[in-house]
Amino acid sequence: MPTVEFLPARASVEASSGTSLVTAARLAGVEIDLPCGGDGSCGRCIVRVAGGEVDTESLGRIPSAASSSGYVLACRTRIRDRAVTVEVPERADANGQFADSEARSLVAPELLPKADDIAPLVRKRLLRVEPPRLDDGRSDVDRLAAAIGGAVTCSLPAARSAAVALREEEGRVTVSLGTTGGGVRILDVEPGDTTSRSYGVAVDLGTTSVAVQLVYLPTGAVLATESDYNGQIPCGVDVISRINFAARSGGLEELRARVLETVNRLVCEAAFSRGVNPGEIRQAAVAGNTVMTHLLLGLPPEFIRLEPYTPTVLEPPVLSAAEIGLGICPEAPVELAPCVGSYVGGDITAGLLCTDMALETHEINLFIDIGTNGEIVVGNADFLMSCACSAGPAFEGGGIECGVRAAAGAIERVTVDPETGGPSWRTIGDEAPVGVCGSGMIDLLANLLRTGWVNPRGELERTRKSDRIEVEGKRARYLVVPAAESATGRPISISETEIDNVIRAKAAIYSAAALMLERIGLGFEDLGTIYIAGSFGRFLDLDQAIAIGMIPDLPRHAYRYLGNASLTGTFMTLVSRAHRRRQLEIARRMTNIELSTIPEYMDQYTAALFLPHTDGARFPTIAGAARRGRSDD
Amino acid sequence: MPTVEFLPARASVEASSGTSLVTAARLAGVEIDLPCGGDGSCGRCIVRVAGGEVDTESLGRIPSAASSSGYVLACRTRIRDRAVTVEVPERADANGQFADSEARSLVAPELLPKADDIAPLVRKRLLRVEPPRLDDGRSDVDRLAAAIGGAVTCSLPAARSAAVALREEEGRVTVSLGTTGGGVRILDVEPGDTTSRSYGVAVDLGTTSVAVQLVYLPTGAVLATESDYNGQIPCGVDVISRINFAARSGGLEELRARVLETVNRLVCEAAFSRGVNPGEIRQAAVAGNTVMTHLLLGLPPEFIRLEPYTPTVLEPPVLSAAEIGLGICPEAPVELAPCVGSYVGGDITAGLLCTDMALETHEINLFIDIGTNGEIVVGNADFLMSCACSAGPAFEGGGIECGVRAAAGAIERVTVDPETGGPSWRTIGDEAPVGVCGSGMIDLLANLLRTGWVNPRGELERTRKSDRIEVEGKRARYLVVPAAESATGRPISISETEIDNVIRAKAAIYSAAALMLERIGLGFEDLGTIYIAGSFGRFLDLDQAIAIGMIPDLPRHAYRYLGNASLTGTFMTLVSRAHRRRQLEIARRMTNIELSTIPEYMDQYTAALFLPHTDGARFPTIAGAARRGRSDD
Repeated sequence: MPTVEFLPARASVEASSGTSLVTAARLAGVEIDLPCGGDGSCGRCIVRVAGGEVDTESLGRIPSAASSSGYVLACRTRIRDRAVTVEVPERADANGQFADSEARSLVAPELLPKADDIAPLVRKRLLRVEPPRLDDGRSDVDRLAAAIGGAVTCSLPAARSAAVALREEEGRVTVSLGTTGGGVRILDVEPGDTTSRSYGVAVDLGTTSVAVQLVYLPTGAVLATESDYNGQIPCGVDVISRINFAARSGGLEELRARVLETVNRLVCEAAFSRGVNPGEIRQAAVAGNTVMTHLLLGLPPEFIRLEPYTPTVLEPPVLSAAEIGLGICPEAPVELAPCVGSYVGGDITAGLLCTDMALETHEINLFIDIGTNGEIVVGNADFLMSCACSAGPAFEGGGIECGVRAAAGAIERVTVDPETGGPSWRTIGDEAPVGVCGSGMIDLLANLLRTGWVNPRGELERTRKSDRIEVEGKRARYLVVPAAESATGRPISISETEIDNVIRAKAAIYSAAALMLERIGLGFEDLGTIYIAGSFGRFLDLDQAIAIGMIPDLPRHAYRYLGNASLTGTFMTLVSRAHRRRQLEIARRMTNIELSTIPEYMDQYTAALFLPHTDGARFPTIAGAARRGRSDD
Repeated sequence: MPTVEFLPARASVEASSGTSLVTAARLAGVEIDLPCGGDGSCGRCIVRVAGGEVDTESLGRIPSAASSSGYVLACRTRIRDRAVTVEVPERADANGQFADSEARSLVAPELLPKADDIAPLVRKRLLRVEPPRLDDGRSDVDRLAAAIGGAVTCSLPAARSAAVALREEEGRVTVSLGTTGGGVRILDVEPGDTTSRSYGVAVDLGTTSVAVQLVYLPTGAVLATESDYNGQIPCGVDVISRINFAARSGGLEELRARVLETVNRLVCEAAFSRGVNPGEIRQAAVAGNTVMTHLLLGLPPEFIRLEPYTPTVLEPPVLSAAEIGLGICPEAPVELAPCVGSYVGGDITAGLLCTDMALETHEINLFIDIGTNGEIVVGNADFLMSCACSAGPAFEGGGIECGVRAAAGAIERVTVDPETGGPSWRTIGDEAPVGVCGSGMIDLLANLLRTGWVNPRGELERTRKSDRIEVEGKRARYLVVPAAESATGRPISISETEIDNVIRAKAAIYSAAALMLERIGLGFEDLGTIYIAGSFGRFLDLDQAIAIGMIPDLPRHAYRYLGNASLTGTFMTLVSRAHRRRQLEIARRMTNIELSTIPEYMDQYTAALFLPHTDGARFPTIAGAARRGRSDD
């Protein structure tokens, strides 16, 4: 008889062909949730078939993206005549005790929502609703509303499930309640007590990367984080090319469909990994830059790039998941992070929640978010000023052939042998290398510069011999990993053209920050804390970022690296009304400067197209190290 | 060259193959609206190809039901090499001066909304919105909201069209504004001044028939009325069989889809007949009985037929057209008529608006709505009491082989020759006969009874010879129209079994009315006015309805026939807030009696299964006429 092995328990059982996975699990002593009794309606018995073949009728009941990854409903799946391996997701318990996301640990604890702050927009309530009686003329929804009390409206999907839910456990039902402008709204009605299953999702919608976080709402615990490339990348690598693509016939609809596919797939993965049905996710918070926000909502973005650069919306209203197209509970309220201007969007107003910049501080602080666009904010409790520059996707693994996102197999550290030019590298998760992520790219360039294998103009050293430098005509290329050692079977290397891309990206960011400070009569030395946000890798090496001139040469203790601050800030607005209010305040207070209207920007930018900068005096510790390096020779 | 003829102008023009209908119309001097400039986006150049062949790219731009009837977008349609006939719809002008619906003329003028009452939920406003400026950080929606003033929310579809609309005529736009619980909501934004195009639709959702009325909102003028059978009929002829069908797998979804298909097709026909794009309809009011209301909203109806007969909702909230699935402006608010109980629904609370029953009157009045269910209401300003009985669809052309709805070709009057039993009949529109409608059925049965060709038990006369009576075994059949004279090529006849259906229907109604009055200590003689609603035919012949015992034998001046009161009342709630409030009040005030819980009902019903009644004293004028008839012999 074929064997069925259940992971992670490693419990095995022999079962005859045609046995359902639910039966096999019971025989193996593995617990699988079956609240609907196995009729395929609740979707809670999701498992992943990791090996072997099965017959499943799960199709149509779970999203196709998930089923192509092997996810099936255990109650609808039978084994064939060979061995099968089944992964049973780790269940979220009522206290949601799971490892928190790494990025949160980068944020000062006093800025995160406290237990008292946890107040999501949606909450569950267990009710006992009076049974229907012949002498009681009230409808099901009337009695339900009376049990809740006050001004209550009922959504159509909630009304659709009310009659059956009210009769299943003698009027004992759990309602999901949302607070909207007009009062309390019933989003959903479930039979029995499901108050321990209350989930929300935070979404960071980047031009290059999309990240989602599944959150247990009652405690604000992060249950799972998933991220991937934005499915819109084939339509253009930066927001300008996306805007152009949207102008084509059907282009806007395609962009909207593509980003929704990415988000919905990640939401499914996060949910399924914790045994949660995406339909149980009843609140969402989403942050994206202004263009991404428009594309998600299907708003034509073309006027964002035409003078006077006016977006359709800055502060989107609360919308339902169904209106937006999110594959969660259709009536779930979705709050979008408010944008400030055409190129300073919701990712920034979310990210600023990870800083003390809008709070009472003595100092003036700086916030730099390095993504496909670079955004810079300076200010304190009295003023907030922002600007944006186009950095390109070089730090997120885009626009560079060997560039990858910061995920398993990405090279995040590279040292360079001064003598031979040979690299040694380390990957995330110590897996075989697939490419170089943002922090790896910065590390590589800084070390090539420090060892002299790249000169301040970004040209590779041709006069000294290294088997790592290949010259093709006028351009040269540096080989990080030969094909034989790479996980992809292709060599991992970077060309001088690609080094130029990195230099342009870092120059755009540095010069924008420098210019903005200059405009308000400040210099870098006047700043208290400098917050750096961006998903380069797990940790940005400040010395290396300063070495290539991406960020100013200030005492290292002035810096605070935040990781994906947009995602962390969005998580905060999901679970705390106070943080959401602070975000709206930040957006309303911020003044945006349009760099393209400032003639000096081009000069500043050109001066920064050098490693670290044409004005060496701006980077004294780097110049000092270089001098020391030379005197060591 | 092929000829293109435009109707109703009868203007012809010769045009080469491949010429678009827009060009041909211009050459022929026929005006066709082209507000979008001919790019197929506005849908206002709808015409119907009545003859000949064309190449059209209209698909996907107009509903499929409409395109299968020959409707095309003139801007997207080209002629081939043969003659084409094109019907150009009559345009609704700004004053909406069109023939009003017949049914309205049956309602006392003082009950209809006056000019001062006209206050629809949705209104259009022409705005001049400030242009975007570099020094003005506001988004398009922000400036739009500022131009409206006050607390304004913007729907997602409105936001999607805002950017382009605001830039088309230098900020001159027309907004459609809806008033919701939470303030004013922008449903839609159109460039330029479209305030003269403001439409709503009233829908009467009957078990057997569906009727829609296209209304010009600013004046409350009725532009078009369309009706047809409810597409759910193949799933069951009455509400009980529909409830059973809904319990099947996928049954509820099928019923919902079928009724939406009927409603949306009728809305298209009404709109296109007046050159209106269904997307320009921005408000709807819908009335249906409780089961039809549940089926339209996709609410499981099963508990309506199970004790204690509790529906999911009685007073549905305002929903958007998109939530319900109506093919009009997706954000259009849809108000559903409130229901009172499981079998006294929104059609009754709508119909009562055509009466003075909830107003200050000295008399106690009675309202009888005769549809597939019969509903009866008695009361005045102090009390309102209702009950329902199952009449079956006999008076609406259902359950009887030759039965048809009251439409062109339906026999609405039949006289019977006392000597030969031969009929003479009249059809609606004087067209060739297709069947017998409700009023025709009553007329036929009353005249067969009066002439002795049917006896009081509903049996056809077999002893006298008539070539109209065919005996098949134990049952006989009366031939109204032989196959050769019928429009369908099939004979139009009625069997004794079908006569029984009519008798059961009239007995259910009479006995319910009699019993309800008895319960509150009243008799028919205590009543002031008796309102009769139902869509039997154009006019119900009271003498004939009394002759068969459907309604009590009272002075004829006590009766007022209202036609389709549900549709007329729904029209009133569409255009007048005061009437909508009155409807909600009526629903809240009404007390419902469940006849099935009253043992005497069965006795009353059995006694009424006779023409006119087993107790002849209840119908003195009929008995008198019969005596006179016999003495004449």
